[in-house]
Amino acid sequence: MKYTDAIKEVRAKNPLIHCITNNVVINFTANGLIALGASPVMASAKEEAAQMVQHAQALLINIGTLSIADVEAMILAGKEANRLGIPVIFDPVGVGATTYRTETARRILAEVDITVIRGNAGEIAVLGGTSANIKGVDGSGEGISPSLVQQIARELDSVVIATGKIDILSDGNNTYSIANGHEMLTNITGSGCLLGAVVAAFTGVADDIMEACIGALSFYGIAAEAAAEHTEAPGSFQVAFLDQLYLLGDSASDMEQVDKIEVVVK
Amino acid sequence: MKYTDAIKEVRAKNPLIHCITNNVVINFTANGLIALGASPVMASAKEEAAQMVQHAQALLINIGTLSIADVEAMILAGKEANRLGIPVIFDPVGVGATTYRTETARRILAEVDITVIRGNAGEIAVLGGTSANIKGVDGSGEGISPSLVQQIARELDSVVIATGKIDILSDGNNTYSIANGHEMLTNITGSGCLLGAVVAAFTGVADDIMEACIGALSFYGIAAEAAAEHTEAPGSFQVAFLDQLYLLGDSASDMEQVDKIEVVVK
Amino acid sequence: MKYTDAIKEVRAKNPLIHCITNNVVINFTANGLIALGASPVMASAKEEAAQMVQHAQALLINIGTLSIADVEAMILAGKEANRLGIPVIFDPVGVGATTYRTETARRILAEVDITVIRGNAGEIAVLGGTSANIKGVDGSGEGISPSLVQQIARELDSVVIATGKIDILSDGNNTYSIANGHEMLTNITGSGCLLGAVVAAFTGVADDIMEACIGALSFYGIAAEAAAEHTEAPGSFQVAFLDQLYLLGDSASDMEQVDKIEVVVK
Repeated sequence: MKYTDAIKEVRAKNPLIHCITNNVVINFTANGLIALGASPVMASAKEEAAQMVQHAQALLINIGTLSIADVEAMILAGKEANRLGIPVIFDPVGVGATTYRTETARRILAEVDITVIRGNAGEIAVLGGTSANIKGVDGSGEGISPSLVQQIARELDSVVIATGKIDILSDGNNTYSIANGHEMLTNITGSGCLLGAVVAAFTGVADDIMEACIGALSFYGIAAEAAAEHTEAPGSFQVAFLDQLYLLGDSASDMEQVDKIEVVVK
Repeated sequence: MKYTDAIKEVRAKNPLIHCITNNVVINFTANGLIALGASPVMASAKEEAAQMVQHAQALLINIGTLSIADVEAMILAGKEANRLGIPVIFDPVGVGATTYRTETARRILAEVDITVIRGNAGEIAVLGGTSANIKGVDGSGEGISPSLVQQIARELDSVVIATGKIDILSDGNNTYSIANGHEMLTNITGSGCLLGAVVAAFTGVADDIMEACIGALSFYGIAAEAAAEHTEAPGSFQVAFLDQLYLLGDSASDMEQVDKIEVVVK
Repeated sequence: MKYTDAIKEVRAKNPLIHCITNNVVINFTANGLIALGASPVMASAKEEAAQMVQHAQALLINIGTLSIADVEAMILAGKEANRLGIPVIFDPVGVGATTYRTETARRILAEVDITVIRGNAGEIAVLGGTSANIKGVDGSGEGISPSLVQQIARELDSVVIATGKIDILSDGNNTYSIANGHEMLTNITGSGCLLGAVVAAFTGVADDIMEACIGALSFYGIAAEAAAEHTEAPGSFQVAFLDQLYLLGDSASDMEQVDKIEVVVK
């Protein structure tokens, strides 16, 4: 499925995405989801996190700014999403940087069935038990091989997306590389976190999780390429990028932008 | 009073608005208030929430991202605002979506004298005891009739603002519709939440609460109309809207924009 | 050292800045640091705040939106930064506005060795024991004399930066005024808070703290002047300012902008 079909599906169904995410990117995530054609809801109190899931088409769990209260809410919401059979996207921001973050990520993986994990190469390597060089939460870590991503996807029994200059995506059996995107994404905070939310929106309306992920990754990358045509600095790039999330996919000229998807491991 | 007089009053008096609001919109709310000519302060720790009210000209309580600690602070601050006689604006974001949110809204209404309630049609309907279709926190719910808004205002003994394509405003006796605004407001997060803060700023410097609300609603809607003349996408709309909150009302050409206020129930 | 050398140092070394800061400005702070050429990390859970410091080149503590949990994390992180010998920048937002805030600021000063304090004139006056007129957290308070700033720096044994129309900087022995900047900075939230983070980035890569502060202040002010050439309204100013934090210092034409640094007390 081309991304143009996938984004039309999102816009037609306007899924509600429940995001338990970090305070740095919470506004950008909400604005990005609305721009895209989805609806965000953020409810991280443990008293309501699970009940709010009942309205949602997908759940995003992002550990960028953890607190103990948040972790309880994440697990309650995750279990409810599992019970309801809706996708759970997990973004293990900064895993490996502190013991607390690593243990929390492992606890979430143990207690919740995760549909898709989205992290940078270094974070994915840590989840896979590989030592990696993590610099803060924005560090992209070292590159990671497609076959390692495939192996980690198999071990964790989830779709795994390792983002970087080239994104790698695997469900343990099929593995793809997606080379869309633009380096300006690394000059704004939350571009990885918002991608997790976008993956949630695409998977929330799709029958096939892998196709939805491919659609989300290529759409997101192409939106960044289109935004970078308007500006060479990060403040205005962020604005142009939100604009493109809203505009991209509706006009014929969008077809000129080419997705760069390859099967890399069979 | 035309909005042009009301906004001049805000800019002349530069009221301090204490906002206990949600993490999604907290930055946008602060920037919107400053752009407008007011000063924001956000202090949600229960140790200081009430004392901070003593510096403020109005208090905003918004339950968009609740926590138990926040609720304590909201009630302490609300009671202090009541004691001081300054307006309290309540934004029941997402009420009806979870039991916790609905119970919290009712508890706030029971313990604090609320001057103005600002919600979308669905949220206002829930507060009025009417079942309504609430979709997340950005859902506009179903339309609500002016006479129902008037009845709810009477029951809750507050001015009630039900926002939507057309905003309805009532103090239980007089009821108005305000048709300014632009649909681009629904493509950014926090446009309703910021409106609550803007209402707080206008009421904080005014003698007449209803006039202040009318001024706030028409000013806000006309600013959105002016911003939408510059862009058709949400990232740049948000920027243009903050610009217009700052620019609107100072030049003669602003008079070309017409407020669309009607008395709808007598 | 001219700011052009200082900013090159930041970009060459890409320091990781650990920010325990307020929810209003957390996104703007992260984006500002990335634009500048530094990397932000925000980890305010007490379970990991100290460990995260071990990856960082400087620590920022900002009390803009306090909670008891945050204060514990601030002190744990501050002590770890002291143990490691990395700079700690303290931003006492709103000190003097509530008892809780003032006591918290004094507790942090008592338990952590602070390298640089960044506040507006009113906040610095409160820390120095002078009564001052504080209006909310954005209030600039009254002007403060360079000799008083020098005295407070001596008493607190820290470099002190009192920002306002003209910034005053002192280590207790040498005192400078820096007249760069633009009044549009007062029309957006978080311009003072982000400056604290920028000071952290400059000091995190420097041998000489005072030189780093001078570099940070003049760079920041000149970036604001450059941004204000593009716009006269706050929404677009914020965007242009982030752009300038990224662009400024790399081209020859930047040399046309002059820093306005003077020695004011000997």
